[in-house]
Amino acid sequence: MIKASIIGASGYTGGDLLRLLLMHPEVEVDKITSERNAGNHVTKLNPNLRKFTDLKFTSVKDIGNDMDVVFLCVPHKTAQDYVKQFYDSGIKVIDLSADYRLRKKEDYEKYYTEHKYPELLGEAVYGMPELHKDEIKNAKIVASPGCLATSAILACAPLVKEKLVDNLIIDSKIGSSAAGTKYDLSSHHPERRGTVRSYKPTEHRHIAEIEQELSLVAGSKIKIGFSPHQVDLVRGILTTVHATPSKELKDVDLWKAYRSLYNDCPFVRLVKDKQTVYRYPEPTVVAGTNFCDIGFEIDTNISRIVVMSSIDNLVKGSGGQSIQCMNLMFGLDEKTGLWYPGLHPY
Amino acid sequence: MIKASIIGASGYTGGDLLRLLLMHPEVEVDKITSERNAGNHVTKLNPNLRKFTDLKFTSVKDIGNDMDVVFLCVPHKTAQDYVKQFYDSGIKVIDLSADYRLRKKEDYEKYYTEHKYPELLGEAVYGMPELHKDEIKNAKIVASPGCLATSAILACAPLVKEKLVDNLIIDSKIGSSAAGTKYDLSSHHPERRGTVRSYKPTEHRHIAEIEQELSLVAGSKIKIGFSPHQVDLVRGILTTVHATPSKELKDVDLWKAYRSLYNDCPFVRLVKDKQTVYRYPEPTVVAGTNFCDIGFEIDTNISRIVVMSSIDNLVKGSGGQSIQCMNLMFGLDEKTGLWYPGLHPY
Amino acid sequence: MIKASIIGASGYTGGDLLRLLLMHPEVEVDKITSERNAGNHVTKLNPNLRKFTDLKFTSVKDIGNDMDVVFLCVPHKTAQDYVKQFYDSGIKVIDLSADYRLRKKEDYEKYYTEHKYPELLGEAVYGMPELHKDEIKNAKIVASPGCLATSAILACAPLVKEKLVDNLIIDSKIGSSAAGTKYDLSSHHPERRGTVRSYKPTEHRHIAEIEQELSLVAGSKIKIGFSPHQVDLVRGILTTVHATPSKELKDVDLWKAYRSLYNDCPFVRLVKDKQTVYRYPEPTVVAGTNFCDIGFEIDTNISRIVVMSSIDNLVKGSGGQSIQCMNLMFGLDEKTGLWYPGLHPY
Amino acid sequence: MIKASIIGASGYTGGDLLRLLLMHPEVEVDKITSERNAGNHVTKLNPNLRKFTDLKFTSVKDIGNDMDVVFLCVPHKTAQDYVKQFYDSGIKVIDLSADYRLRKKEDYEKYYTEHKYPELLGEAVYGMPELHKDEIKNAKIVASPGCLATSAILACAPLVKEKLVDNLIIDSKIGSSAAGTKYDLSSHHPERRGTVRSYKPTEHRHIAEIEQELSLVAGSKIKIGFSPHQVDLVRGILTTVHATPSKELKDVDLWKAYRSLYNDCPFVRLVKDKQTVYRYPEPTVVAGTNFCDIGFEIDTNISRIVVMSSIDNLVKGSGGQSIQCMNLMFGLDEKTGLWYPGLHPY
Repeated sequence: MIKASIIGASGYTGGDLLRLLLMHPEVEVDKITSERNAGNHVTKLNPNLRKFTDLKFTSVKDIGNDMDVVFLCVPHKTAQDYVKQFYDSGIKVIDLSADYRLRKKEDYEKYYTEHKYPELLGEAVYGMPELHKDEIKNAKIVASPGCLATSAILACAPLVKEKLVDNLIIDSKIGSSAAGTKYDLSSHHPERRGTVRSYKPTEHRHIAEIEQELSLVAGSKIKIGFSPHQVDLVRGILTTVHATPSKELKDVDLWKAYRSLYNDCPFVRLVKDKQTVYRYPEPTVVAGTNFCDIGFEIDTNISRIVVMSSIDNLVKGSGGQSIQCMNLMFGLDEKTGLWYPGLHPY
Repeated sequence: MIKASIIGASGYTGGDLLRLLLMHPEVEVDKITSERNAGNHVTKLNPNLRKFTDLKFTSVKDIGNDMDVVFLCVPHKTAQDYVKQFYDSGIKVIDLSADYRLRKKEDYEKYYTEHKYPELLGEAVYGMPELHKDEIKNAKIVASPGCLATSAILACAPLVKEKLVDNLIIDSKIGSSAAGTKYDLSSHHPERRGTVRSYKPTEHRHIAEIEQELSLVAGSKIKIGFSPHQVDLVRGILTTVHATPSKELKDVDLWKAYRSLYNDCPFVRLVKDKQTVYRYPEPTVVAGTNFCDIGFEIDTNISRIVVMSSIDNLVKGSGGQSIQCMNLMFGLDEKTGLWYPGLHPY
Repeated sequence: MIKASIIGASGYTGGDLLRLLLMHPEVEVDKITSERNAGNHVTKLNPNLRKFTDLKFTSVKDIGNDMDVVFLCVPHKTAQDYVKQFYDSGIKVIDLSADYRLRKKEDYEKYYTEHKYPELLGEAVYGMPELHKDEIKNAKIVASPGCLATSAILACAPLVKEKLVDNLIIDSKIGSSAAGTKYDLSSHHPERRGTVRSYKPTEHRHIAEIEQELSLVAGSKIKIGFSPHQVDLVRGILTTVHATPSKELKDVDLWKAYRSLYNDCPFVRLVKDKQTVYRYPEPTVVAGTNFCDIGFEIDTNISRIVVMSSIDNLVKGSGGQSIQCMNLMFGLDEKTGLWYPGLHPY
Repeated sequence: MIKASIIGASGYTGGDLLRLLLMHPEVEVDKITSERNAGNHVTKLNPNLRKFTDLKFTSVKDIGNDMDVVFLCVPHKTAQDYVKQFYDSGIKVIDLSADYRLRKKEDYEKYYTEHKYPELLGEAVYGMPELHKDEIKNAKIVASPGCLATSAILACAPLVKEKLVDNLIIDSKIGSSAAGTKYDLSSHHPERRGTVRSYKPTEHRHIAEIEQELSLVAGSKIKIGFSPHQVDLVRGILTTVHATPSKELKDVDLWKAYRSLYNDCPFVRLVKDKQTVYRYPEPTVVAGTNFCDIGFEIDTNISRIVVMSSIDNLVKGSGGQSIQCMNLMFGLDEKTGLWYPGLHPY
């Protein structure tokens, strides 16, 4: 059994990660920490886990050196020290914050804050199994990707790998759970229900990791335009990519590109069906699961490819993907504990 | 392995039952039928099952005599013949329609239509393991309860069993998936979103099974007032029971009554917590699961007890509860294939 | 022109009241106050009012003695002093808080806090024109009713007036705007979307004003059981009343009772139509308007009447009703500035 | 008084148009037609209009020659004949279908069907007052724009008029009322709630009118990429335009372009506010109103401008805009009957 703990388990990311770890056949959850909630039962914040655990929140000081792996669900900046500390103790670390996702200190500092341990950035592997499976197997630090970034990178990677496109505009629609448990005006129910809100049409932080990863895949510098929108969902992202083809393309070229990259990726499903309402990806279909559904269409009016991808921001965009990495780090099938379908209707 | 088939698998009930059966470790799904969709992949209607099954819909004529169990997800009236047919073939039948839920022909015919096989009504067991566990183990026909009825009966049973109340008013709030896949004005998104609609304030059909089961539990005739409301959910029921106590009651009396009846019932959770937002049952907490959460409060202003129960109408109110029965019928732990928590947030 | 100001205009109640006053043909809005937002344009908080006003929030200290009327949209307790102050200045006061709704000091103090000016309680008129039209015309202080109370009282008043019922159970479903602009867990979008939450199944504060008003109408002490539920709406209440008839009743008896009381009430619509989906009241139909729709049904299974009423909590349950009172206080037709239909679909 | 009738008044477009016409101070609604609903009260389908009208649906055959204007709310193709018929009778026609929006027969026939009266296409004026005010004043046939087209054209027109951009990608998000009253799987509540669905990522019909109008404004052929998405709203559109600037642009250049074109347009509001959650357009803010809110941002990462526009598809995208045209056709202020704010919160 893998002995695991979650640092900063009181938010949505930590809570949903705990749900998955409790059901994982090869994991024993040792401790979950929250300084503010220490001493309280986790079910006070996660009523869905009643009858599944008696765990109480504890302090990070109680984490022992006998952990096999720790998951960090603390905010960026706070994670910097914890990664260093656990790494130095020889414990495998999966960091769900943004602190170790960017390889270059200057990229991190442009969008976030000062980085105290730039020497560790090279140690960390970007935790997206579809692109970095072998590195993840041997990683000591895994930086789990952002949710919007996951949906965008998986939608675009085959296009840039095969040099099929020149220009990438990424228009995402995202549910409210992605903003976490901070209560504010934009997440206040009367203000969020029924809206479609362009809250950061330019300069969103996830641009950095999307461009980093797509540039790695392409072997050349990729720049993107990125605009996310808040919609009236709780879980889920639909990302729509509008790309300009670099040459004339047919459906078969796109099928090849996507199949070639994702052939061995159990959690990617290619969805393109002429006959049903569900002919392209939709967030409700993947809600609660670790799947990323991807579909595409070629425009006949202008030179354009449209790619759509959907994920659950709290699973494939967060805790689920980090467990997929953990499975690889410990020699398990990457599907372990994650292989179940979503609900229909949701 | 239990060889199972689903008759009438193209609706929400059949689709969600299939999801659960596909993940059940002791079940092999042999056939799923839909005359109208015969030949089509089930994933055309259930996009969540992509990568989980290659099953196509087939005709009921293709069901072989080697089934261990068939689940009927056809409308009431249609189920009458199928139950007879499979029963006569010696196949265990779990009927999710209303056709065999009522013990008395006249009760059925008051709310539904003519019953062709009244002699079989006595063979059928009402498939609610919390009340009929032993009978279910030996049943050849299980009549799986209605969703609203499930939430109402589980909320009220301890009260009537212990003769604690005289009068039961049941006010339920239910999601749109309960009305199935028939497209009409009342389920048209622009007409259903954001409403609270009292669609059947009196004379709802489920009164019959609720009164039947509560009367059995009480050992005397119980009558109820029942008013369901459509709300802007997809999955889920919250039932609020307003009951008049037959004597002065304290919290401890209610705890005793509920614990006594549900002590050995894994899927009932008693929820009553003074300190959190989640202090009473909520449908989102049980969505996708087989749990029934139940809480209560005693009024100090008038003589009244308020009991709240929440379930997922498609799981504990339908396919999940029918699998719980199947587990009992085949000597398995009733939790098999059903023991996982819901999502938070949902 | 009536010169009006709003004290405490930064919440939903004040904002929606301002929308209505700006469009009122006989009102000039002089000042709107918010100590915290003083100096800011009101459109920063109410983006719907762009192009309709250049008003900025100001301090309550800037309110002059030349007002014809002030509306108080401050929290209870805070309103006590303001009412006293404006009353002493000879300015008509419409208080939307709970501070002057209850005639008896002890009733107020049971549910709220100490009352500093009990001598003024007798001066205040409960601002429900359907019950107190003549008193409102001459009132110097109007205490505008609570939103849940409005829906409950209007649903029950004809029943108790005509002595038709013995027992009243009131089960309400309410949108999130009623809880105001305080950001907390229960109003956080991921926690509120899609739930049905029994948040105060007993002992809700509005019991006091509902019982007070129904007892006045009945001429004898009326007690109620009251349980509100949060649902996934922003604006709107559906109240379902389960009443026990005191004698055998027919539809015509109920029609008579309701028509008799509400015959001259422009904002009450009796809704009872056998043939449409909209056969009973629904909150979406009255959203944004000052209407209270009321319908009923007689149970044939047990001795029970079901009455349903729907309002918009921010209009008939708050600002709209207070303007209806203002119209009466200033000799205008009570419909002035309020006579427009809702949206369909909403 | 303008004597007006609505042909095909049983859908959402006709129903909301009727709401607006009933409240219009200069209009008398003579007849509303629906062959299928002839004889029924309009309030059977539009419960919001109870107490506002006693109109019944009648047959189109009952429309007299004394109409001043008829509004056509019938499907495309059906409208062809009606326009011809009323035009020949000398009655002003406002056609809300697509039949007379496109100036070229071949454009119409590419996306729709055969056109029987191509000679009338030149008579019809595209009913967008912001672009064609003078022509509308003298028009005998007004072709009221599509809802998605309205949001897209108003967002892009200043950019193409001033030659500021080279490339236009239009990503729209739209509510369910736009699909009308046809009950099908995609509008079935359990399938539509909570989804974000790319239902027509390429080749949507509105491309034709968007390109026609933008080309007219630009004085040169404009091509667009257009992808609409269904979201969980009833009323409302948010359109996000991703445009490539043709030269380096500053905020002030965009302000100039938008102010210059829309300076005299009462229903366009420019929304760009650094300090609030409502800093860009949102559909909830304009729901129920005739406003089009427009905002923009310049990307600093790649060469891109992002423009956002929001409208209510049933008002500015349909009935409201057609009344705005009627006002102009009859010499009224274009705001008449349309000048009221939306609700906040909605």
